[in-house]
Amino acid sequence: MKNLKGALMFAQSGGPTSVINSSAAGVFIEALKSKNITEVYGAANGIKGVLEEKFYDISKEDMKELKLLKNTPSSALGSVRYKLKDASVDDTDYKRLLEVFKKYNVRYFFYNGGNDSMDTCNKISKFMANSGYDCNVMGVPKTIDNDLFGTDHCPGFASAAKYIATTVMEISLDAKVYDTPMVCVIECMGRHAGWLTAASKLAAVNGLAPDLIYLPEVDFDIDKFVEDVKDVCAKNNNKCIAVVSEGIKNKEGTFICELVAQGARDSFGHAQLGGVAATLANLIKEKTGFKTRGIELSLMQRCGAHLASKVDVEETFNAGRIAVKAAVNGETDKMVCYERKPGKKYEIEYKLLPLELAANTEKTVPLEWIIDDGRNVSDEFIDYALPLIQGESKAPLENGLPRFAKLKKIFVK
Amino acid sequence: MKNLKGALMFAQSGGPTSVINSSAAGVFIEALKSKNITEVYGAANGIKGVLEEKFYDISKEDMKELKLLKNTPSSALGSVRYKLKDASVDDTDYKRLLEVFKKYNVRYFFYNGGNDSMDTCNKISKFMANSGYDCNVMGVPKTIDNDLFGTDHCPGFASAAKYIATTVMEISLDAKVYDTPMVCVIECMGRHAGWLTAASKLAAVNGLAPDLIYLPEVDFDIDKFVEDVKDVCAKNNNKCIAVVSEGIKNKEGTFICELVAQGARDSFGHAQLGGVAATLANLIKEKTGFKTRGIELSLMQRCGAHLASKVDVEETFNAGRIAVKAAVNGETDKMVCYERKPGKKYEIEYKLLPLELAANTEKTVPLEWIIDDGRNVSDEFIDYALPLIQGESKAPLENGLPRFAKLKKIFVK
Repeated sequence: MKNLKGALMFAQSGGPTSVINSSAAGVFIEALKSKNITEVYGAANGIKGVLEEKFYDISKEDMKELKLLKNTPSSALGSVRYKLKDASVDDTDYKRLLEVFKKYNVRYFFYNGGNDSMDTCNKISKFMANSGYDCNVMGVPKTIDNDLFGTDHCPGFASAAKYIATTVMEISLDAKVYDTPMVCVIECMGRHAGWLTAASKLAAVNGLAPDLIYLPEVDFDIDKFVEDVKDVCAKNNNKCIAVVSEGIKNKEGTFICELVAQGARDSFGHAQLGGVAATLANLIKEKTGFKTRGIELSLMQRCGAHLASKVDVEETFNAGRIAVKAAVNGETDKMVCYERKPGKKYEIEYKLLPLELAANTEKTVPLEWIIDDGRNVSDEFIDYALPLIQGESKAPLENGLPRFAKLKKIFVK
Repeated sequence: MKNLKGALMFAQSGGPTSVINSSAAGVFIEALKSKNITEVYGAANGIKGVLEEKFYDISKEDMKELKLLKNTPSSALGSVRYKLKDASVDDTDYKRLLEVFKKYNVRYFFYNGGNDSMDTCNKISKFMANSGYDCNVMGVPKTIDNDLFGTDHCPGFASAAKYIATTVMEISLDAKVYDTPMVCVIECMGRHAGWLTAASKLAAVNGLAPDLIYLPEVDFDIDKFVEDVKDVCAKNNNKCIAVVSEGIKNKEGTFICELVAQGARDSFGHAQLGGVAATLANLIKEKTGFKTRGIELSLMQRCGAHLASKVDVEETFNAGRIAVKAAVNGETDKMVCYERKPGKKYEIEYKLLPLELAANTEKTVPLEWIIDDGRNVSDEFIDYALPLIQGESKAPLENGLPRFAKLKKIFVK
């Protein structure tokens, strides 16, 4: 535990969320107040910006704009998908980071991201410690996927969940207006964890639950799916709303969308998914002759900041502030996490988790919450997620449209 | 001009909108107050409900729920796509309608819909008049397409426009986070009229205009599109946001999506569109090697009531009320329309237009507003549309999610 004096470097990584900038706002506003923090830097495009010495001087930004960050979706500094090699295999990047840290006297390094980013953060933390360079390293979590280990939920999940539940309610009303058959397949993000898809179940609290929900945690059987849809249609005036995860796989482990088309892969070697809704909608059309619609919630579910949850925005802001306070007090090698207090009333406590525990461990939806032979989720999920989507917090309107933060982004030379 | 005493029959037709029920609320609340209106009926699934004697007794509904209709998307009574034949060809349906009207003493018939529905409404109006049956017939317009003739704009358009502009802003931020190339193609509804696609331009007022906008009013050239995207990418760090109408066609008149797949047709013989964004995104990927994303705003753009424009909700509610007042005062064979008053301050006057003028005439975006060789729209469009998307009006939240109207829907026996 060392109380250091020097610059703070903050970087955003991985897929953006509606509230990732709220953490940035929390970090920046708190860091600018701290006496131990001499400079506040924001790296352009994550760790790449640090490696390339491309970062912004946050003290040059207007406080008004920094506050608007709280309700501005997407990563304002730019993001990156770049996975560091193990230092034991190739330490080139680490040495370069150390060089940059020394040059700018960076004594606080904060990385904001999901699983892969916490892994990056952990590796950097260990390398700096092993090199004898004093730097307090903190992970600030974010991921709409909600799959980080060691935290009750992840910053960004609740806003995406609120977007999904609200949108599924609206689509449910729309898709059922005609007296003719209609099957609607809605696709949510979440490669390996079904939290976002499960969020559609929240619509049940106001009476508009989807008919079928399929999570990637359990095998997906196409023939059974067709039967499930037919069953719902038979009972329900030939209407059916099914919500599926982009990551559903058959029991052989093949992504459903890959059964139709060979998918490209992203830079981490993850299969590049999408098109499940369209694929299944076409299949149902073929098997039943019914009119169908495949709807992909695409980027909207992660950038729909106009539907952000106030709980999420505030917690995410606090996570940023608390990371700064903890680091200034000498904490290092930790990720901020949320612990839910027991009792009926929803309340959380902010805790610090060792980075190696957070890195690379995926938290999926408990199998006992997946019910009805894999086509629905239980009320336990609602009890878990409903408190998270409460309240509204969004950008002020200007000209009837959101006024998002506009940063000057002045590079440090 | 006859002052009639009898029942009012209201029916919703065509594709739903975020605010179509606001007109229903206006009609119902005003009609329930009128001494000349003995009963208030809501037809199940448009004209089909009347033909089949399936309609609800609106007086049995709670006033609280009727008020919630104002912010409940989609057609609460159910909709239909059913085009009446010309009475001169086959008057079976008309005779049946007359029979039902007589049986229930329907003296006020209101039809809520777009182009095709105004045509239906017009035909019914003429048939009743020719049959010597006194019935005041009113068209209440709605269409997100904004293509009805004789009105400054159409109820429902502004809310869809606000949804599109807001969502395009959010997507613009999201799609540009990485330092790698990214081309995003966003698809909006609007078969023959580009009003909705043009609405993406409103994002310009807060600095997030899309780079390219293609309306169906002008020919679409695929090769030129690829060049346009390349040009934008070259100037713009390999990022491009293009917004296209589902209805863009090449100069031979073939829908772009049909160039790839043979489309199905709906019950009116309209080509069933969709998939333009995916088609063009794939094309750009093939031609440039860049990462691309095709995003269809699908049903969300017409049912996203959480983003409704207050101007739209209020005008649409008033349109319903004014239709009732006018009919009770003896008006018939008219459609309610909006006339914009001259001057800088946005204000409208509600007028009545003969139904035959409203029926079947499509109003498209003025060609002089389509600029930059067909890849952008001018500021005149912004001047026209921006006043329409002002203010917010949405359902109250319950459990953090919208509380939409729940009608009892008690059938009249």
